[in-house]
Amino acid sequence: MDELENLDDPLKTQIANLALPIKDDLLSGAAEIALRAISVFQTALNLAPADKKEDAPLLKSILTATAKALIDVQPAMAPLLHLGNSVLSAIDNATSVGEIKVKTDEALTKFEYTLCASAATIADLAYDLIDPGELIFAYSFSSTVVSCLLNARARGRFFRVVCTEARPSMEGRKLASRLASGGIEVIHTFDNAMGLVLGNCSAAFMGCDCIARPGVVNKVGSWMLAVACRELKVPLYALSGTEKFIPDDRMFDFEKHERPAAEVWDNSPRGVAILNHQFDLVPYDLLTGLVTEHGILKESDIEPYLVNSNSTMHRALILEASTR
Amino acid sequence: MDELENLDDPLKTQIANLALPIKDDLLSGAAEIALRAISVFQTALNLAPADKKEDAPLLKSILTATAKALIDVQPAMAPLLHLGNSVLSAIDNATSVGEIKVKTDEALTKFEYTLCASAATIADLAYDLIDPGELIFAYSFSSTVVSCLLNARARGRFFRVVCTEARPSMEGRKLASRLASGGIEVIHTFDNAMGLVLGNCSAAFMGCDCIARPGVVNKVGSWMLAVACRELKVPLYALSGTEKFIPDDRMFDFEKHERPAAEVWDNSPRGVAILNHQFDLVPYDLLTGLVTEHGILKESDIEPYLVNSNSTMHRALILEASTR
Repeated sequence: MDELENLDDPLKTQIANLALPIKDDLLSGAAEIALRAISVFQTALNLAPADKKEDAPLLKSILTATAKALIDVQPAMAPLLHLGNSVLSAIDNATSVGEIKVKTDEALTKFEYTLCASAATIADLAYDLIDPGELIFAYSFSSTVVSCLLNARARGRFFRVVCTEARPSMEGRKLASRLASGGIEVIHTFDNAMGLVLGNCSAAFMGCDCIARPGVVNKVGSWMLAVACRELKVPLYALSGTEKFIPDDRMFDFEKHERPAAEVWDNSPRGVAILNHQFDLVPYDLLTGLVTEHGILKESDIEPYLVNSNSTMHRALILEASTR
Repeated sequence: MDELENLDDPLKTQIANLALPIKDDLLSGAAEIALRAISVFQTALNLAPADKKEDAPLLKSILTATAKALIDVQPAMAPLLHLGNSVLSAIDNATSVGEIKVKTDEALTKFEYTLCASAATIADLAYDLIDPGELIFAYSFSSTVVSCLLNARARGRFFRVVCTEARPSMEGRKLASRLASGGIEVIHTFDNAMGLVLGNCSAAFMGCDCIARPGVVNKVGSWMLAVACRELKVPLYALSGTEKFIPDDRMFDFEKHERPAAEVWDNSPRGVAILNHQFDLVPYDLLTGLVTEHGILKESDIEPYLVNSNSTMHRALILEASTR
């Protein structure tokens, strides 16, 4: 079954171009990227050529292709999978273009609402993890972590944040700027200096791109942070809505996400191979807890949130053995 | 007693300028910097103004000031301390300018010879730590590590090296280039990606700037490397001649070595404080061994090499309580 066979090449190119800015967004957290993806779906609703505006199967194909394209450009970002899944499941039984549009809009609105409500609950839980007057370590750029820290500051808690660059895309600078402009005092250094600052922190926060049985996937360097936190006895929390849970069979898709060598070292000399992987995996035993909208979870609590491809995923998004 | 009171300001400025390039050399290893410092002493021998060329006390003051200036610009680099100590101890009883010059030349030549002989022995020991066909991790830039790896390759051992950037001065790129041009295949990535590559390595090598009872001081990031190596069960060796041992009371001088914020983030936003420390401390229990010209040492073997300020250092180089 190829649900995309009625798409012509210009349309396929248009869809791919819609997803492209999401591929190149290395600075935003997963939740922030999900919000951007919502507007990609809104744009995709109007992609059909003028003479086919009322072709319901074509619009379904466009939305299916959009969902797949978004997942493809950021395979580690769980919310993109769930957003696509929500849209495709919502329009499955729709028969007219009008109905597809209404159902899609509803699914997008509901997804955005859930994301925001879940962020608010997580911020409340994180507030209690920030000791007054203490230093908090924050790694990479996570929109969830940023909103938790700004929320705590707005509620009058005083604390300082230490963060590092997060090479090679340096989204740690975006984190530092965002927090500083929100009135939080920030101390910033480079990633390999983590060991010099972490020991003075009362807790460390990280975001997360996806979660499954093996652990939490986040920006590369999270594993080093986690090992250093354990060594220095600093509690480490991953702040993340349960929309980050994905099927186990997609877990290692993040390993596909290799970026261009030039981002690390432009014109590196002959004989030097460059590795530019974006993510690594933090096993649960290195985490103090997963702060979600359902409370602070330990490994033993995650069973109910694990996602089963075959029972919860739309058929168009289930990975076939041959595509692995 | 101020042995430097007979130096006028222009002469003090000349001496400070001689040491300046050593201060700004963030890319060379400690042994390489010691070789550069030898030529600084050779230049200093000719600094006296024409009308005072035969003033022996003045030349002694010039050499004392040169030794202090070199130690001051790179307080973590042990060989500079020992080089200065060798020169000052050698000229202590010299009474004429001619004698001072001869004794200085002898001390410099002996120091250089010892440094090279010790490097050759360390290279032999390191050769046996490089398993054929394996991956070796190397951190930062250490002239001792580079010469060991190139020596092993030249002796026909085939292996690959993984290294990381070593932010902010990126001397890992110098390491990668030097090894690649010596025929070693190199894999290069950024520092926070250490966890993705280290697990595939059969051993990790680092250099060292100084050693004392608390542990080994090296480029910042070495502590993270050491913690990651232990977690992944990769043996970690510090390759270093025993000229890196320094008195315990100088051990934490490396913490003074803060570099400009702009090297980390030029024009960082208001409210963001930048930390740019160059070194960190690796305690012995995180090291598999210290590869020296006297064999591979464990913590229990270091006692004979510990340096006592009062019995082995020239009086001009002993730290007074008031200067701490």
